[in-house]
Amino acid sequence: MHKPTSILQLICSDRPGLVSELAGWITENGGNIRHADHHTDIEAGLFLSRIEWELEGFQLKKESIVIAVNELAKKMSGKAQVNFSDDLPRVAIFASKQSHCLLDLLWRTRNGEMPMHLALVISNHIDLKPLCNDFGVDFIYIPVTSNNKLEAENKIIDQLNKYKIELIVLAKYMQILSGSFIEKYPTIINIHHSFLPAFKGSKPYHRAWKRGVKLIGATAHYVTEDLDDGPIIEQTITHVSHRDEITDLIRKGRDTERLALARALRLHLRRQVIVYRGRTAVFA
Amino acid sequence: MHKPTSILQLICSDRPGLVSELAGWITENGGNIRHADHHTDIEAGLFLSRIEWELEGFQLKKESIVIAVNELAKKMSGKAQVNFSDDLPRVAIFASKQSHCLLDLLWRTRNGEMPMHLALVISNHIDLKPLCNDFGVDFIYIPVTSNNKLEAENKIIDQLNKYKIELIVLAKYMQILSGSFIEKYPTIINIHHSFLPAFKGSKPYHRAWKRGVKLIGATAHYVTEDLDDGPIIEQTITHVSHRDEITDLIRKGRDTERLALARALRLHLRRQVIVYRGRTAVFA
Amino acid sequence: MHKPTSILQLICSDRPGLVSELAGWITENGGNIRHADHHTDIEAGLFLSRIEWELEGFQLKKESIVIAVNELAKKMSGKAQVNFSDDLPRVAIFASKQSHCLLDLLWRTRNGEMPMHLALVISNHIDLKPLCNDFGVDFIYIPVTSNNKLEAENKIIDQLNKYKIELIVLAKYMQILSGSFIEKYPTIINIHHSFLPAFKGSKPYHRAWKRGVKLIGATAHYVTEDLDDGPIIEQTITHVSHRDEITDLIRKGRDTERLALARALRLHLRRQVIVYRGRTAVFA
Amino acid sequence: MHKPTSILQLICSDRPGLVSELAGWITENGGNIRHADHHTDIEAGLFLSRIEWELEGFQLKKESIVIAVNELAKKMSGKAQVNFSDDLPRVAIFASKQSHCLLDLLWRTRNGEMPMHLALVISNHIDLKPLCNDFGVDFIYIPVTSNNKLEAENKIIDQLNKYKIELIVLAKYMQILSGSFIEKYPTIINIHHSFLPAFKGSKPYHRAWKRGVKLIGATAHYVTEDLDDGPIIEQTITHVSHRDEITDLIRKGRDTERLALARALRLHLRRQVIVYRGRTAVFA
Repeated sequence: MHKPTSILQLICSDRPGLVSELAGWITENGGNIRHADHHTDIEAGLFLSRIEWELEGFQLKKESIVIAVNELAKKMSGKAQVNFSDDLPRVAIFASKQSHCLLDLLWRTRNGEMPMHLALVISNHIDLKPLCNDFGVDFIYIPVTSNNKLEAENKIIDQLNKYKIELIVLAKYMQILSGSFIEKYPTIINIHHSFLPAFKGSKPYHRAWKRGVKLIGATAHYVTEDLDDGPIIEQTITHVSHRDEITDLIRKGRDTERLALARALRLHLRRQVIVYRGRTAVFA
Repeated sequence: MHKPTSILQLICSDRPGLVSELAGWITENGGNIRHADHHTDIEAGLFLSRIEWELEGFQLKKESIVIAVNELAKKMSGKAQVNFSDDLPRVAIFASKQSHCLLDLLWRTRNGEMPMHLALVISNHIDLKPLCNDFGVDFIYIPVTSNNKLEAENKIIDQLNKYKIELIVLAKYMQILSGSFIEKYPTIINIHHSFLPAFKGSKPYHRAWKRGVKLIGATAHYVTEDLDDGPIIEQTITHVSHRDEITDLIRKGRDTERLALARALRLHLRRQVIVYRGRTAVFA
Repeated sequence: MHKPTSILQLICSDRPGLVSELAGWITENGGNIRHADHHTDIEAGLFLSRIEWELEGFQLKKESIVIAVNELAKKMSGKAQVNFSDDLPRVAIFASKQSHCLLDLLWRTRNGEMPMHLALVISNHIDLKPLCNDFGVDFIYIPVTSNNKLEAENKIIDQLNKYKIELIVLAKYMQILSGSFIEKYPTIINIHHSFLPAFKGSKPYHRAWKRGVKLIGATAHYVTEDLDDGPIIEQTITHVSHRDEITDLIRKGRDTERLALARALRLHLRRQVIVYRGRTAVFA
Repeated sequence: MHKPTSILQLICSDRPGLVSELAGWITENGGNIRHADHHTDIEAGLFLSRIEWELEGFQLKKESIVIAVNELAKKMSGKAQVNFSDDLPRVAIFASKQSHCLLDLLWRTRNGEMPMHLALVISNHIDLKPLCNDFGVDFIYIPVTSNNKLEAENKIIDQLNKYKIELIVLAKYMQILSGSFIEKYPTIINIHHSFLPAFKGSKPYHRAWKRGVKLIGATAHYVTEDLDDGPIIEQTITHVSHRDEITDLIRKGRDTERLALARALRLHLRRQVIVYRGRTAVFA
């Protein structure tokens, strides 16, 4: 529907002239800017920028853009990344037994909401295989026990390599990935079923019920080595009352979880998220 | 506007016949039930009930109602409380320097939203005296230092006694009350400027900013000896983004704080809140 | 999970003693009340009540309960209805081409969130047949044109009779049902893709975009002869900005639509909704 | 707290190079861009831009900036406006009898949330004079009857001229301003107590209650000649239930009204709103 675009994300030390340099370079090469959004973190002295322009009519080819952007970043002593809206990243979803997040993402992908190529579902349980079959997505069953954890991760990595996966989405995958795994695959989005930093760790709904909170939430975040401490992309909440038992919290929570995860994933896929200093700037 | 009512709040072990007994007793004495709301906490095996009926036409006078309700509760081996909508409780608000919650409650009281008699404002700073003067509410300045804490609390207690205060509202009172104070005045409502249990303790907005959350909140709760751990009455939230600096969080937070506190106080005053097991049932 | 219950819904003129009579009758017959909620519409002089009690231990059988409740209602000059939580109503979903609401309900039903027997999906398009096959639900294709409208409705009615349907859910069924159809099948829940009464009728997202609103919504309501004017059960909203094009409104709207419809349907199935005077009381 | 800035708002036909030209001009003159936000309305073929840069170190003085921006706009065949964050606009609030919006704005102004000089309150009733006195703001009582409408508006205009008012805020001013008034004072922000376009006109809460909606809202918008049809800046909502009587809707509504109005006014004052084609782009 929309014309293919080039999306530049840049972080560097703040100083006068940055917007002008970036925009100037795009204009010189015949680009028409569709979106441009900048943010200065004054305390940190950092300049963050996201610029999206149409590839049509732009004088550089994709390969040349990548090279030019790297040079630009170097000159600015910053870090830059460029992506193209018509290059769909290859994504693997990890799930366990719960279907709500997985089904939601399968459906949104089929519906055209998610600019990605959903290549693979990996699960430590066999339960969701039929669902993946229904949607025509490859499903690989890799059981995980306390004894075979390392071995299982190696099997997973083999599959990720085979499928050329660039992005992993943990859609209620009830296993903790090792530090060495996260090092190899640094771009992982997870959904945690609480309003972080409240109720980090296991059984958040049980603890929320016990504490008697009046709102419950879900948090989609990038995975880092520190459990549930990664940069937050999106949070959603819903009201609960004393009438809600733990099963009601779990039921209501499913709706906030799938929404937070889907929104976060879409923001990531559209390159609207820049991570820095353990936080995210979301150019929505 | 509304006719005066009697409001019964009861907790007892769950068994068949409770609603019938309560409603039967009211009917026998000619009462017309305006609201009746019950909740069974299945796990705890507890029955909670709130019944409100018109005093007009009821055959018992207030004193007799109180006696009868106590007998009823005894018979049911439960705990009961009865209040009358036209007996306005005498309330003291504690504040420090920030005006937003205090002004909001002063205005709502004058506006007729709060069924209470706002008798007194106590503060450890002099700043809000003119505001209280504007609204014609007594203001008493009792400074608190690390050395005079006990002495200051004694002064406060003298004033509470003199003013016959039944309920205390901490409207951004930046002092921690001692355990012995809370024992003497057990009904205290506080507003905490975070979405509890996240960011308990001091400087929640600073920590929220650092963590990079996408929603901030406020929690109105009853005060117990464990700081920020009392039964939650109401929670409100608002969206924030990477563009919001800490000062923006503080500014946006003021709107969620005053709303959560005002809602919680009104629920309490209308006897819509029953506390049990560290939680609240809010019959709204 | 929960024990089977009997759910009584009653409307009658307000007068003293109603709660007592209802609760008394249940207690006399050995019933343990799980939930009891009453509302008095003072202006209308009406008493509305919903009482839920466990069937286990209750001395009357279902048939006798129905008879007794009818007598009770007659005596009170009111209207009453009794339902049993383990008698799942037979439901038909009507859909057209859009899958989001249908898929959501198929999934929730399979997941155990919806106490109903989803017997049939009817559509004027063939597109959603595979989806229904995946979930093992009968799908019947009944095309509708401007010429065959009456004939199509007759075919639909034949199927509804054959499948013994008690409740119809319009999950983005883009056809207007005739008055005579609604007379025959009076219990129909519809989802409208706007925040009613704003943007009644067709193309609400296009009109919302044009008007430049900052929030869009969805409304689940009972169907009456006046299009989009039936009693509202649930409304949900989401934020939009100037960056959202009409396609974004449609995309974001899908999330509010499926949520409003699912919530409304569940409230209905749990007999938490009482309709009166074009409005609903929702005992949630 | 923040350093003074210059804020440019521009609309023109979309074409390549616009961001570059704007940013280039600022950089050439030594400006450091604090915020830059652009939007392309593809359908309309329009480019909208808001750029904010620090005055400190910028080579042009304010007067020269204004002249230069006008030339820039001319060259681009667009419309531009430039404002300076330390030039506080002179504002008049119009109110009638209800105090909630007025008090809220008085308090926010005193609290430093509102970058404006609140010079004057005008009312057709005397009731809110003491409140304005408390806050040290001039209050002028200009009664309006069906007979003296024109005469009253002339008196108002005299005062607006005398006080050099640049912006008018209708904070529950229950009078309709004439077309000729709006022509003279085109920048007026109004708060309407419904979720527009639902319940345009009078008594929206009464109509919302009658319709049985489950959410009520408030809309802050610029005033145009067509009542309640002006460009929307901000909308807020709150939940209601069957338990809420009309007086409850009015009470709950006050909280949504004052919040929507305060947010909208702040967005306007910070020059974050661009109006075009009956809509607003809000660069928040």
